[in-house]
Amino acid sequence: MTTHVLFRGPQSRNDNWRTLFADALPGVTWYHWPNIEDKSAIELMIVWKLPRDYQQDYPNLKVIFSVGAGVDQLDLASVPEHIQVVRMLDPGIVKGMSEFIAMHVLNIHRDTFSYINANKTCTWQPIPTMENKQRRIGVFGLGHLGQAAAKTVLELGFSVNGWSRSPKKMEQVNCFSGEAELPTFLAQTDILVCLVPLTPDTRGILNIHTLSQLPKGASIINVGRGEQLVPDDLLTLLNQQYLAYAVLDVFDIEPLPETHPLWQHSNVVVTPHIAAITQDNSAGQVLVNNVQRYIDRQPLAGLVDRKLGY
Amino acid sequence: MTTHVLFRGPQSRNDNWRTLFADALPGVTWYHWPNIEDKSAIELMIVWKLPRDYQQDYPNLKVIFSVGAGVDQLDLASVPEHIQVVRMLDPGIVKGMSEFIAMHVLNIHRDTFSYINANKTCTWQPIPTMENKQRRIGVFGLGHLGQAAAKTVLELGFSVNGWSRSPKKMEQVNCFSGEAELPTFLAQTDILVCLVPLTPDTRGILNIHTLSQLPKGASIINVGRGEQLVPDDLLTLLNQQYLAYAVLDVFDIEPLPETHPLWQHSNVVVTPHIAAITQDNSAGQVLVNNVQRYIDRQPLAGLVDRKLGY
Repeated sequence: MTTHVLFRGPQSRNDNWRTLFADALPGVTWYHWPNIEDKSAIELMIVWKLPRDYQQDYPNLKVIFSVGAGVDQLDLASVPEHIQVVRMLDPGIVKGMSEFIAMHVLNIHRDTFSYINANKTCTWQPIPTMENKQRRIGVFGLGHLGQAAAKTVLELGFSVNGWSRSPKKMEQVNCFSGEAELPTFLAQTDILVCLVPLTPDTRGILNIHTLSQLPKGASIINVGRGEQLVPDDLLTLLNQQYLAYAVLDVFDIEPLPETHPLWQHSNVVVTPHIAAITQDNSAGQVLVNNVQRYIDRQPLAGLVDRKLGY
Repeated sequence: MTTHVLFRGPQSRNDNWRTLFADALPGVTWYHWPNIEDKSAIELMIVWKLPRDYQQDYPNLKVIFSVGAGVDQLDLASVPEHIQVVRMLDPGIVKGMSEFIAMHVLNIHRDTFSYINANKTCTWQPIPTMENKQRRIGVFGLGHLGQAAAKTVLELGFSVNGWSRSPKKMEQVNCFSGEAELPTFLAQTDILVCLVPLTPDTRGILNIHTLSQLPKGASIINVGRGEQLVPDDLLTLLNQQYLAYAVLDVFDIEPLPETHPLWQHSNVVVTPHIAAITQDNSAGQVLVNNVQRYIDRQPLAGLVDRKLGY
């Protein structure tokens, strides 16, 4: 018996994964959306965004695999309860994300953006540095990606705080949890790294109220989701010179519109959602393993808790 | 019998080191230039630059300790043969330098400077990345600092080539040596990290001839000495879009004059000689240990080979 898998995404990735699946799981029949002979045969879907009316068109759909680390783009509330939703746990994403965070934590710590700004006015002005262990990095969200990021910045010699919705423990990380401990976490964070999943609770969570609880001179790195940040509140605090720098990789509207004031702010670095890109080879292997588990009726890796939304 | 040590440098560092020496080596008498009772008592000097006419004024001078990793600022040719010259082997310098190099290798690898330039024109354009192991970092100079830098970028997953004057071996590093192997080293280097000492041989070594042996699209990080780079040659290759980016921390004239074209070039990042700053605490301990060795008539750590000039 064959398992019918539908992939919706770019041609190059399709070609890569189709080959990978053909080699590893010959029992799988692979389709590249929108070329499907019999929609009712499709049990598994690998997508970034879902096709319209998939609930009606694919009556035997059992599992939706997101090609990204997040599943907020899927509109979970509209996914029928009996369909399993699975996040992408790609080691390539983890590596890319940790590297991006390490790089920008160092850029903020070692004043790269201040020096680049000083170049514009031909200003030679060494800035005194502090020891790494005196700089407190706050990892906001201690999931799969947050834990890896915390580990990486620890290895660079920084002090690390972590915050998660439910209590977690990590060696050498000063862990906080729940709404009640958020103010303490923020007050002790010099560089805030936002990695929480996007849920109704975290929408707009980086606002003037929370960001002004960071110590004066703090900076932020947003690699979570754009909808978590209120850009006007960030700009207010940057313009008051209360916050120092912001590295933003995600935005509520992407591409970020040309007219958006974030683009031209001298203390903001905009990157076009490139902190961690799903790597075809490593992610394809993750999908092969997970589809094998599905065939073997084993629990899937990265299964989303529908109530929590991640 | 007491050993008389003269320090020439800023007050804050003087206060720090005077205390350190008083605690560790009570047999040492410490002077802060220019307050010296009897110049003929001075055996050891700790300096960045030497006082004028020191050869005549300090007839019993035995050792000059540089407070920096380099000794090119001392004009070695004018130092009498019987005086030992010692480089600073400060672990704080090594850590700061490796961190700066890792950060800027990552910035070049992950296109930080391209994205910062794209911000000016509000351009959202993700740039495809290559795997770290496909990016070849060329460490030019495999001394104390070069070896540490090579190790750090290896740990980040990059491929590493190294070049040194005389043959060296380092695990996982593709080592080249001597003038004859320089072209092969350059041809296989995507990001060149210059860490060679400044000697008559290396003055102007980063010129149009050598830099154009790098593959098209290569970048450079100069953390050696400014005199090693011919800025006009670099600018020519950047303007031809033959080279991609240059991070320059050192210049033949420092501060870099306001009118210098390097300041305003969009593919150049100028930093004000901050890649690695001698750390008072760790460097002070290195000096204490070395003065102890002097008192014990042991060989000094970091002794400069007067013929090689480093």
